[in-house]
Amino acid sequence: MKMSDGVEWAVHCCTFLAALPNESALSGARLSEFFALPKDYLAKHLQALSRAGLVETSKGPKGGYRLARPPAEISLLDVVEAIDGKNPCFQCTEIRRQGPSGQPDRHYKKPCGIAAAMWKAESVWRKELKKVDLGSLVHEAELNVSTLQQESAYDWLCKALG
Amino acid sequence: MKMSDGVEWAVHCCTFLAALPNESALSGARLSEFFALPKDYLAKHLQALSRAGLVETSKGPKGGYRLARPPAEISLLDVVEAIDGKNPCFQCTEIRRQGPSGQPDRHYKKPCGIAAAMWKAESVWRKELKKVDLGSLVHEAELNVSTLQQESAYDWLCKALG
Repeated sequence: MKMSDGVEWAVHCCTFLAALPNESALSGARLSEFFALPKDYLAKHLQALSRAGLVETSKGPKGGYRLARPPAEISLLDVVEAIDGKNPCFQCTEIRRQGPSGQPDRHYKKPCGIAAAMWKAESVWRKELKKVDLGSLVHEAELNVSTLQQESAYDWLCKALG
Repeated sequence: MKMSDGVEWAVHCCTFLAALPNESALSGARLSEFFALPKDYLAKHLQALSRAGLVETSKGPKGGYRLARPPAEISLLDVVEAIDGKNPCFQCTEIRRQGPSGQPDRHYKKPCGIAAAMWKAESVWRKELKKVDLGSLVHEAELNVSTLQQESAYDWLCKALG
């Protein structure tokens, strides 16, 4: 089981947008420059974040992407689901109904116990991702990386925002 | 994020093997017949279960696959990892170190907070899968499906075991 690369990119971009000063925005080109990511491929993920209502775009010379809600109101789960969708990771194809002993639908009143156990485990995973919001990721990053790295990012940002 | 089809097949096969009478075994061909699954593709997954030490093969006319441990000692996590591997679902490529403000390794003393949050959520998922064992899945299936379906499966099994 593997998450798409786009999830990593999207979470980093959203966390960076969460750290921007109020009312400022960054273009897709600037975001791809900051993380050294391929611009066109990142653009698709930014569009997915936009469709999910997590980011919005502002027009004009200082326009670009910004969060559509306060960082504390966007969870890691929101970003994961914006990129990878909300479908269950475990897809039950009801193989218990196949083969020589399979019976008509009415013989299976409850969901397959295997699928139920898989989906329960997924639900605890989703709950855990829901506990983490972009505000806490920004705070964690500020504690985690060196002052030099933060200053360097800040200098880049000042130039990018003009 | 999506699990491979092989996980569903492998869990069903293992749960079925867990319900077999002691010392009996089923060939790959019989398992593929019971679940109406493509024989060659299923064989690959049965080999993966064997490599992971979850099933073993016995030789002879009544030979085939059987569980290598008691059902209560094989968890859903064991089966999932036998098929989909033990790698983290979230692959961190350290994009925080990329781009114009990236710094040498010594500036990042802790793992990226985003990766840490993702891996924490995965660990609760794995713990939940570990709580479920094949014995409980057999028990659940016995409660869950109709008597007719169980009798039909039992008849097929009696013929298959000879």
